[in-house]
Amino acid sequence: MNLSSHLLESAVKEFAQLPGIGKKTALRLVLHLLKQEESTVMQFSETITRMRREIKFCKNCHNIADQDLCAICNNPSRKKETICVVENIRDVIAIESTEQYNGLYHVLGGVISPLDGIGPEQLMLETLSGRAINGETKEIVFALSPTIQGDTTIYYIRKKLNNPQLRFTTIARGISFGGELEYADEMTLAKSIRNRLPVDSYLQ
Amino acid sequence: MNLSSHLLESAVKEFAQLPGIGKKTALRLVLHLLKQEESTVMQFSETITRMRREIKFCKNCHNIADQDLCAICNNPSRKKETICVVENIRDVIAIESTEQYNGLYHVLGGVISPLDGIGPEQLMLETLSGRAINGETKEIVFALSPTIQGDTTIYYIRKKLNNPQLRFTTIARGISFGGELEYADEMTLAKSIRNRLPVDSYLQ
Repeated sequence: MNLSSHLLESAVKEFAQLPGIGKKTALRLVLHLLKQEESTVMQFSETITRMRREIKFCKNCHNIADQDLCAICNNPSRKKETICVVENIRDVIAIESTEQYNGLYHVLGGVISPLDGIGPEQLMLETLSGRAINGETKEIVFALSPTIQGDTTIYYIRKKLNNPQLRFTTIARGISFGGELEYADEMTLAKSIRNRLPVDSYLQ
Repeated sequence: MNLSSHLLESAVKEFAQLPGIGKKTALRLVLHLLKQEESTVMQFSETITRMRREIKFCKNCHNIADQDLCAICNNPSRKKETICVVENIRDVIAIESTEQYNGLYHVLGGVISPLDGIGPEQLMLETLSGRAINGETKEIVFALSPTIQGDTTIYYIRKKLNNPQLRFTTIARGISFGGELEYADEMTLAKSIRNRLPVDSYLQ
């Protein structure tokens, strides 16, 4: 693509480095910004630079934070006895948007995956061990992807934290809402039969 | 979407203002930038601000330019006798990427569309009139969208420039490559029959 302007070309290149943005989309975005007021574009750039420079990670749960502790750990109305273990920040956002969980989180920063070179020492496990024995914690809820890596991580953490005072749970796995039974994979279907629910609790 | 960080939230908002970028995509882009080095994000922001601040519009043809004249008007190997009239910068880029045209351009900045409040005075027509009588120009090629607005604009410009020395042409309209005849609209099909081409020139 010959854009006959170096300035335009480098801006397009920058946008095209973002995930899921091709050269054509990048060009559309850049031409849109070109039509905006200079102050609007300045604000766009400054907000992004500031976000990258000033954002912190919560010392407690490694979620993103504006201060030392994130808004969830800082919130006195959240229940301190439950810690939901997730892979990344996006999972926190997804669970928060359901408005069904009122405990704390712990962001691992990944799952154990030897093939990708990710062992337990690459994950935020030390701080989790510390939190698990602080006396307040009663339940660890695993909300990890239902993959071999996710299950390995659950197994590892459970063994490491090995504490009869703690209750270990995992989010339910089964057939998705709107999912058709005949298209469900065998593994999911098998697990959903084994872990069947009393209809009364399901309809609650 | 509750992101538990104001910094993150405002960055997502900025991205979500771009065309075709929803909140979820914006979040994905912002989290990607968050993972990059601070210098990478600085460069991203600076390139975009600089592009908006320093980019100019060619005094001759209103294409984007790094200097007073754009790279096409400045290029001595381009033929000066042909001016291709287009609606916007994106059309210049599209035609340039075909590598089939070696003349100059004139970017109108829109087409005449009374319903949208765009009359001839909103378009870059004065400079086109000046260029059309500079003695060098021999042909005006209209590359406008085949809409009523596009055709009105062609009609208007042709009448305004009214000059027997000038040749007025338009890019060919017809059935697209890969297009199926039975699905073509009547108007296109009718025009493509009326303006049929000798097979020899078509196969060239």
